[in-house]
Amino acid sequence: MVGGGQLARMTSQAATGLGIGFRVLAGGASESAAQVVAGTRLGDYRSLEDLRAFAAGCDVLTFDHEHVPAPHLRALEQDGVRVRPNAAALRFTQDKLAMRERLTGLGIACPRYALVRTIAEAEVFADGTWPLVLKAVKGGYDGKGVWVCESAAEAAAILAHSAPLAGQGGLIAEEYIAFDRELAVLAARSPHRQGAVYPVVQTVQRDGICREVIAPAPGLASGRRAQAQELTLRIAHELGVTGLLAVEMFETPAGLLVNELAMRPHNTGHWTIEGARTSQFEQHLRAVLDLPLGSPQPVAPAAVMANVLGGDDEDVYDRYIHVMAADPAVKVHMYGKQVRPGRKIGHVTALGEDVADLADRARRAASYLRWGKEDGE
Amino acid sequence: MVGGGQLARMTSQAATGLGIGFRVLAGGASESAAQVVAGTRLGDYRSLEDLRAFAAGCDVLTFDHEHVPAPHLRALEQDGVRVRPNAAALRFTQDKLAMRERLTGLGIACPRYALVRTIAEAEVFADGTWPLVLKAVKGGYDGKGVWVCESAAEAAAILAHSAPLAGQGGLIAEEYIAFDRELAVLAARSPHRQGAVYPVVQTVQRDGICREVIAPAPGLASGRRAQAQELTLRIAHELGVTGLLAVEMFETPAGLLVNELAMRPHNTGHWTIEGARTSQFEQHLRAVLDLPLGSPQPVAPAAVMANVLGGDDEDVYDRYIHVMAADPAVKVHMYGKQVRPGRKIGHVTALGEDVADLADRARRAASYLRWGKEDGE
Repeated sequence: MVGGGQLARMTSQAATGLGIGFRVLAGGASESAAQVVAGTRLGDYRSLEDLRAFAAGCDVLTFDHEHVPAPHLRALEQDGVRVRPNAAALRFTQDKLAMRERLTGLGIACPRYALVRTIAEAEVFADGTWPLVLKAVKGGYDGKGVWVCESAAEAAAILAHSAPLAGQGGLIAEEYIAFDRELAVLAARSPHRQGAVYPVVQTVQRDGICREVIAPAPGLASGRRAQAQELTLRIAHELGVTGLLAVEMFETPAGLLVNELAMRPHNTGHWTIEGARTSQFEQHLRAVLDLPLGSPQPVAPAAVMANVLGGDDEDVYDRYIHVMAADPAVKVHMYGKQVRPGRKIGHVTALGEDVADLADRARRAASYLRWGKEDGE
Repeated sequence: MVGGGQLARMTSQAATGLGIGFRVLAGGASESAAQVVAGTRLGDYRSLEDLRAFAAGCDVLTFDHEHVPAPHLRALEQDGVRVRPNAAALRFTQDKLAMRERLTGLGIACPRYALVRTIAEAEVFADGTWPLVLKAVKGGYDGKGVWVCESAAEAAAILAHSAPLAGQGGLIAEEYIAFDRELAVLAARSPHRQGAVYPVVQTVQRDGICREVIAPAPGLASGRRAQAQELTLRIAHELGVTGLLAVEMFETPAGLLVNELAMRPHNTGHWTIEGARTSQFEQHLRAVLDLPLGSPQPVAPAAVMANVLGGDDEDVYDRYIHVMAADPAVKVHMYGKQVRPGRKIGHVTALGEDVADLADRARRAASYLRWGKEDGE
């Protein structure tokens, strides 16, 4: 797996369980996965040489992020490396304009969008309706590279400062969606074309960062649930995804709109570690290795996952005692990452029946791990 | 953790999840845990020098087996190393005579036993009733060091060939128990004296090797269940255990008799990985680190675990496809160990409601992984 972050770290736990040889290409020995994976190789995912050296010892190459340069992916494929998902599919996670064009070409509802190079183009797109959303076509993640602009002046400022981004594909404008809530669906697809889809979840984002996931999405009409799952399987098929596909959607009075795609284990699927028969990490391994997919069935009526963000105190370990004593059934996952304010450093999951109770427990634990107190945010 | 076997391997998965620094002292790089744990140090657990060098970097020292020499454990304690469980407790897993004397001293029912040095002593112990059981006082595991003798002649043969064992503590004779079934209970105890006990399970042994575990033990009377759990917590307390204690028991018409003890993650607790809120591996880490213990509650009405023993074909990986295709919900755990006939190389767990169905599924999967077919045994 290329990438040494927490997704690779959690994938390693699944690989260890299955007895599957697992290596990561990490940028440094202190990265989340590099700390724990015996098969860590250090190298730069932006270097074709490093990628080639890493791939030489692997049956299959997969990724914990979407930032490997597309030309490198194609070069590896020409070398005969099994790149899963492949370069053609990954393109739609690396280039938001290509993704929008492809999805709308398939007749899949998305926010209205346009490539904008100037404030004049943005104003034409807005047609007097603000806010609108500007997004970097390439390289954004976790709220970075996405700006909600309340006015033409704000958009002009973003455009003026986006020169470095323009070289990487520029910016697109998208209509601002006044959604009822955000949903996400995770599916897996194997080279044998087997598909498996997890329950639709509700996500709660703040400042562009996922804070909380509720599985399944409470009160979702069965027709809409089926639509969201079918849509995800269809996108996986049409885009030729191998491995996991996460589709983030807006639920609006008019229906579902696709927001973002990812082709890897995804934050909105962390609840599956304890909450589903097959965790997303095991599922991704099964899919990229072309093994039969595991059951995505949930094991409890409901699960709530809350991300633990870094606070201003590094000493997270000292706070375990309080969290564990307060709630012996909440599951704590910490990634070994250096604490920086706002950085995802772990997550907690609560399983049970009553969503309000589970959300309360997950939030308390996450807040305590962040701040050393319950009412920190 | 001292020991590079599958118990250390599975403990590493829990440590990775909790974000707890974890190292293993393994005898070789090909050992089960050494393959996957970044913090592997190579060394000999029989060498005090190697143990000291390993312990120097650890806050707490714990074990995946009971074979570290007792004098070394005491020396480490004198060095100030936090040895958990400590040497005084571990003695009762290293010396079966000491264990029997201590338990019977506590009034806990065990099989009748006696140290036997000669066939004449064995015959006096048998008093005409055969079979009887001979056990090496030290060093036995997985059926090794235990002999069921059907006659004085068989006992004489064992005694004649046990000279090497005699130097390690000799043999004890135990009455042969015509049990109804075998049960096991797993509990954890922390330095703060917090205790937590898992449901009583039924174990199925063949040739002295655990083959199958059913959790909870079907049809167990609630009084006996409580008795078995209380007994286990009492032993943990009286023996001053820190970490996990597994107690294997015989259920007989006359009641429960204690067979064996272990103070580490135990084969009879593997079902807890998916089957309980807190896996035994996480629980052991919490206990030895003096963190609050996790909930031992089961997450499904029933779980069946079957061990995967080595067959005569090394190519286990080729058989994954069949097992996973046949049953997308069975959980496969393989330890990366070299396949040798009869060796524990993995396990499978099925969770659900109907024990007969779960046992069937777990057995099929384990048998297929062993033999490449379902009817191999």
